[in-house]
Amino acid sequence: MMSGMETWQAINSIRVIREFADRPLAAEHVERILNAGRRAGSSKNEQRWAFIVIRDREHLEELAEVGRYAGHLAGAAVAVALISPEPSTTSHTWDMGRAAQNMVLAAWELGVGSVPATVYDHELAHRLLGLPSDRRCDYLLSFGYPADPSQLSAPNRSGGRLALADLIHEERW
Amino acid sequence: MMSGMETWQAINSIRVIREFADRPLAAEHVERILNAGRRAGSSKNEQRWAFIVIRDREHLEELAEVGRYAGHLAGAAVAVALISPEPSTTSHTWDMGRAAQNMVLAAWELGVGSVPATVYDHELAHRLLGLPSDRRCDYLLSFGYPADPSQLSAPNRSGGRLALADLIHEERW
Repeated sequence: MMSGMETWQAINSIRVIREFADRPLAAEHVERILNAGRRAGSSKNEQRWAFIVIRDREHLEELAEVGRYAGHLAGAAVAVALISPEPSTTSHTWDMGRAAQNMVLAAWELGVGSVPATVYDHELAHRLLGLPSDRRCDYLLSFGYPADPSQLSAPNRSGGRLALADLIHEERW
Repeated sequence: MMSGMETWQAINSIRVIREFADRPLAAEHVERILNAGRRAGSSKNEQRWAFIVIRDREHLEELAEVGRYAGHLAGAAVAVALISPEPSTTSHTWDMGRAAQNMVLAAWELGVGSVPATVYDHELAHRLLGLPSDRRCDYLLSFGYPADPSQLSAPNRSGGRLALADLIHEERW
């Protein structure tokens, strides 16, 4: 169940999964995903993050309304809401991005798909997550086994990413 | 040279490396690190990032002045400056954090250490990197083979991270 995947293979093969199988995640898979987030580096090792784990179907369906593209939350086996201090700084957002990437890669190695949701309606997210006034949620991650397991081994779509030559500058812009 | 490391092992064993061996990175290692950044997901697949690769020692030494804790850049084999649009949004920063984590994990699998530098002096960074007015740099990453190779297999320091129970909430805050 914990069969491994080399790091580069995970980085290179991961794809966004928006449709999930209708079964819960194994407890050890959830734990590993959360630990992957926990293990991420953070600015000055401040670890100013918290993770809210959501599994209740009704709660997930409510959370699917927080953003224009957040509908996938309704079908997730588990969602993780990434909680920052309010006000949030660039370094909080950067740290959260790093933690999220750890989580989605650790998930992918276990055959668990994921996709991020951006919060548009902060008031709704705040209420649904029961956040205190000094905390905010900009992103949630949906996790689940893919509805279509062939997605786990599908080749990268060509054209999905810019070529390296279009992104790289040497020494200066 | 491209010997693999399972994804979870990389996530769980990576540590910050601030002192680097005085030798250049293999070209294929640099290429893989950059490709790992390129492969990261980005909000709406906009890929609004660019990477500036810096290897010139004098340039690295100059860049070591951009932040209070950026001194490690002076000794890096390669630095990668992460370039966002200006003005930068939360989603640009989040995307950059995800790309950075891909890079540092891909590096770690190859025996390459890394550490991020936060830009404090934006005017200096802007000038040293030759950025146009519609681009900014909030972070650079230093890469290199560790000066002390035993760091690649050193155990995690206990106490370095909060326990999972201190970070996790179930359903609501």
